[in-house]
Amino acid sequence: MTRKYFVGAVSLAMGLSLLAAPAIQAADAGLDPFLAPAAELRTRALGDDTAYRLLRSLTTEVGARLAGSPGDARAVAWAVAAMKSLGFANVRAEPVKVPKWVRGEASAQITAPWPQPLTVVALGGSVSSPAGGLEADVVPVTSLDELKLRPARDIAGRIVFFTGRMERSRDGSGYGKAVAARGRGAAESARLGAVAMVMRSSGTSTARIAHTGSMRMEQGAPPIPALALSNSDADMLERQLASGQPVRLRLSSTARSEGEAQSANVIGEIPGSSRKEEMIILGAHLDSWDLGTGAHDDGAGVATVLAAAKLIGDLKPHPSRTVRVVLYANEEFGLSGAKAYAEAHATSIERHVLGLESDLGAFAPYGLAANVGQGQLQQVRALQSVLEPLGIQYFGSEASGGADVGKLRELGMPVMDIKTDAAPYFDLHHTANDTFDQVDPALLARNVAAYAVVAYLAAQSPAGFGRLTKPVP
Amino acid sequence: MTRKYFVGAVSLAMGLSLLAAPAIQAADAGLDPFLAPAAELRTRALGDDTAYRLLRSLTTEVGARLAGSPGDARAVAWAVAAMKSLGFANVRAEPVKVPKWVRGEASAQITAPWPQPLTVVALGGSVSSPAGGLEADVVPVTSLDELKLRPARDIAGRIVFFTGRMERSRDGSGYGKAVAARGRGAAESARLGAVAMVMRSSGTSTARIAHTGSMRMEQGAPPIPALALSNSDADMLERQLASGQPVRLRLSSTARSEGEAQSANVIGEIPGSSRKEEMIILGAHLDSWDLGTGAHDDGAGVATVLAAAKLIGDLKPHPSRTVRVVLYANEEFGLSGAKAYAEAHATSIERHVLGLESDLGAFAPYGLAANVGQGQLQQVRALQSVLEPLGIQYFGSEASGGADVGKLRELGMPVMDIKTDAAPYFDLHHTANDTFDQVDPALLARNVAAYAVVAYLAAQSPAGFGRLTKPVP
Repeated sequence: MTRKYFVGAVSLAMGLSLLAAPAIQAADAGLDPFLAPAAELRTRALGDDTAYRLLRSLTTEVGARLAGSPGDARAVAWAVAAMKSLGFANVRAEPVKVPKWVRGEASAQITAPWPQPLTVVALGGSVSSPAGGLEADVVPVTSLDELKLRPARDIAGRIVFFTGRMERSRDGSGYGKAVAARGRGAAESARLGAVAMVMRSSGTSTARIAHTGSMRMEQGAPPIPALALSNSDADMLERQLASGQPVRLRLSSTARSEGEAQSANVIGEIPGSSRKEEMIILGAHLDSWDLGTGAHDDGAGVATVLAAAKLIGDLKPHPSRTVRVVLYANEEFGLSGAKAYAEAHATSIERHVLGLESDLGAFAPYGLAANVGQGQLQQVRALQSVLEPLGIQYFGSEASGGADVGKLRELGMPVMDIKTDAAPYFDLHHTANDTFDQVDPALLARNVAAYAVVAYLAAQSPAGFGRLTKPVP
Repeated sequence: MTRKYFVGAVSLAMGLSLLAAPAIQAADAGLDPFLAPAAELRTRALGDDTAYRLLRSLTTEVGARLAGSPGDARAVAWAVAAMKSLGFANVRAEPVKVPKWVRGEASAQITAPWPQPLTVVALGGSVSSPAGGLEADVVPVTSLDELKLRPARDIAGRIVFFTGRMERSRDGSGYGKAVAARGRGAAESARLGAVAMVMRSSGTSTARIAHTGSMRMEQGAPPIPALALSNSDADMLERQLASGQPVRLRLSSTARSEGEAQSANVIGEIPGSSRKEEMIILGAHLDSWDLGTGAHDDGAGVATVLAAAKLIGDLKPHPSRTVRVVLYANEEFGLSGAKAYAEAHATSIERHVLGLESDLGAFAPYGLAANVGQGQLQQVRALQSVLEPLGIQYFGSEASGGADVGKLRELGMPVMDIKTDAAPYFDLHHTANDTFDQVDPALLARNVAAYAVVAYLAAQSPAGFGRLTKPVP
């Protein structure tokens, strides 16, 4: 069983076979000796402020780090220095090409029936407006689906306004619905002749602060400016539309793409003591949007995985397997780092035993989901028992590994997700309000404890976690 | 006792004399017939959406209305039209000269040790920076008192940063402490040779939104730019200062004063049925700061007093006394309207029987304070009994009448204050976040009910509320 993780995978999603029963027993027994040290590690993590100090440093000394910007380059240097100062081995920056998009300035005003300034931000990837801006009537649509039902004559020459409001919930499920318009709204509007697209922010902030995030140009759709309004300003626009009078909007943007720039995945390791060629991956992304300082997204993840690995590194001897921290380049605007890592490390994918990613902010963790090879349920349950005092329940097998680490899941690597409270996260996410003062040090430490426990037990697990079935191409 | 309000005043603050006892009994008995109709009025107000509709209209169709701006002129026209449509009598705009200050653009960046953009706004009254901005080292001080202890060599040529943080509380008492630096910080800094002043916002918002408000130039102090940082950005600046390295700031502002402009107090009445020459004053201010749409400050007050008076006007017959609504010009930047009203109406001051002002937002009312003539305690208690179901307790005699109506208190007019929850108010007050979506219609209606009840009972009170002692000049 020692090389069990090399065995061809059958996902839990396919159900347990009768043959799996003995494996469950073996795996469960295998973790027993490590549960007490894991609980000690959890306690130590809760009293450790390494993550908070790292996050203060990253947000204060580097700040925003949009892919390809000067802040991105500073962040890479910061991460290399941080890993070295924490005692990591094999610290290196693996080059990654990233797109370089520049925000410039954006503004918008209602000009009729009642002039009002609006708080807006350009969506990532937006083009600029014509010099001097543009002005047109506004046509509201609730969703992409509604837009598709509208004849081009309703849309041509107008500014499309996507009115859909994101729902706030612990699992963050409202975000996926809200961002559909963000990603494709401009292209679909442009196909029907719209001159610009504005949308209600894909976020739940009640502050007058708009939410950025990536959008895509598409073949066959002329590029048009794409802006997000704060929820408050979207309400203003809706109230003016509700008057039944034509509503005109003036907007301008100097957003532009400037080709590619050089960034890097920053990687460092806590070497394993006996099976060091085998790895547990702790991932987070180093880039951020540029409006805040990327404190929760994803400075908190960076700080969490660095501190969790550092606490594991303090153990003598180290756990059996290596814990590798990967701080990914450009998650926000195309997953450049995740793709580059998967490509560069394809030959060692079978030695990637388990991966976790931290990328939902430093809010209260409440769940563990485990997408692992067949027959691992009791091992997962044993692991969750150490997380229980952190308020973390077992949440089944629907784990994605996150946007970056998920690229390795697609190659068969088992993943676990620590679920954290996404309700406050989407109040701040991708806004100017994503700043260090919004981070609760106690909740950050609770996240560190959770990641440290999972990484430690995974690094010690004699049986490993099997392999996942690769999706049929 | 019917003309008791003409009797020379002795403030409650001077204590009750033995002679006052019979007067208390008489006053109490006098209100009894009106308590049941007042309770009916309260119920009707709670189910009425006039105030919410007025506030939606004011914030959507007029928006920001900084004294002397085009929005201010639109607001005066709006208020005249609103009063007429609500059926008020004697509707007029009484001219008031107001200062005209123009915000322009402001920006600030930390340039060393770690470059970071900061979210700032100019304080009202600030001058512009030299063209192209200025850059200097930052020197932090906690307060005006600390600044005065610093030698000029510590301050000269530098940017003074006031770090004091406003405390959040139901009674809003933290605001008074926080604004001391806002009002006088620039002048005191300039006297010591500072080139600019920045301050932590005088507000409790956790959003990355800065708070404006008035500051004063002073004789003998050269004018310097004065900006407020959001709480989050003040934290950033403090963290960089905590590094022990010199912190440099670059800032620019194009704020400027442009002389005077014409505005107006807008006044309208619900005429009394039998003693119409005697008046109950319901005040609020029509102007607002320019960053939001003045929804809570003081659109909510405007809507509250208009709706309360309208509900009283619906009663047939009207109460004995006239209810006069005064929507004051330029409360925010020098109380121009309050001074003009007090001057224009000095000859009728004895016919101003009682005044109330609504200027703390549409949050939960919790208290009634009454600064009235001697011997009125039982009458006040009777009045409070009708407010009790709204959650309003009796809060003693320390009522100011508010910034505007308080000018009439200084002339001897009794005042009552409806205390509302100031904790959420100072999260929004004077920021871009003071918008209609932040208003809870149920709480707004609760305020309307409170003002309607007090105004109605005051208009019916046979005894009136005496007079206050005028302060010794």
